[in-house]
Amino acid sequence: MIEIYAARPGDGPGILELASRIDIFNSAEKACVQELWNEYLSKQTASDYNFLVCRDSERVLGFACYGPHPLTRSAYDLHWIAVHPEVQGKGIGRALLECVEAGVQIAGGTLLVIETSGTPDYQATRRFYEACGYQCQAIIHDFYADGDDLVIFAKYLNGHSTAVRPAQHAA
Amino acid sequence: MIEIYAARPGDGPGILELASRIDIFNSAEKACVQELWNEYLSKQTASDYNFLVCRDSERVLGFACYGPHPLTRSAYDLHWIAVHPEVQGKGIGRALLECVEAGVQIAGGTLLVIETSGTPDYQATRRFYEACGYQCQAIIHDFYADGDDLVIFAKYLNGHSTAVRPAQHAA
Repeated sequence: MIEIYAARPGDGPGILELASRIDIFNSAEKACVQELWNEYLSKQTASDYNFLVCRDSERVLGFACYGPHPLTRSAYDLHWIAVHPEVQGKGIGRALLECVEAGVQIAGGTLLVIETSGTPDYQATRRFYEACGYQCQAIIHDFYADGDDLVIFAKYLNGHSTAVRPAQHAA
Repeated sequence: MIEIYAARPGDGPGILELASRIDIFNSAEKACVQELWNEYLSKQTASDYNFLVCRDSERVLGFACYGPHPLTRSAYDLHWIAVHPEVQGKGIGRALLECVEAGVQIAGGTLLVIETSGTPDYQATRRFYEACGYQCQAIIHDFYADGDDLVIFAKYLNGHSTAVRPAQHAA
């Protein structure tokens, strides 16, 4: 039984320790997790960043951070999601993402956007998003760095289809 | 002869007055221009937001704001570009955008990304970007609001082609 909670101030060290163990996060990305956590901590529910955690007693096994996309009426971004390497593959990531989606919908959001990398290191991550019902909306080549594409996934949370309409007479 | 300059602190009122005259900017967007201007003003060259202006004597006829995209090595965003309604169609927008591109390249940037709206109100804007060599990379439906799509344009500033590679044996 996986339980997900809104992060408490005491979860900060565990979240940051977990982020430090994610090899595919580079140092700037780890610093960004810290920055968003500080913002969440200082503004709590007034923050535009929401953190959710999965805990085993007091140990943070996974976390997710999401928030509204500025200047949109109801689009949200998933900023970060991470599961401790020792407990990956047990459904914690999916449970976190489902709770993010529920939180977005409760807040009136209708669309969750996820930006990720197109490198082989992120292949399992991309497959995870697809398995959770996200569809690739765009690839922007060499966005993060030369050879490191931006891949944008999205899921409409109001039943709206994101499916690309195929040509009717495709071979 | 259109001349473009890095904005001076005294350009602030003119920039904000101009933004207020752009009918397709909503109130949150106008507030965002003000917010980025304040950031530029407080941090100057240390700011991640750069403002360029076109002036007629002391009157601001157009402005652009751009900056590095966080967590990328060399991607930049065009945050805002606007030309006074009375002097549109005279090449000021193109001159501003070319100076932005030059500024990005001087700073080591290789990719300029522009996010805009897919509504009919922004059709002339989208055509302007296309005429300036930007290619549509993605459309995310209902991103800004129901019926208001996100359209992502990009231009590689290092000669890299953005063209989608067609299937070799397409009918």
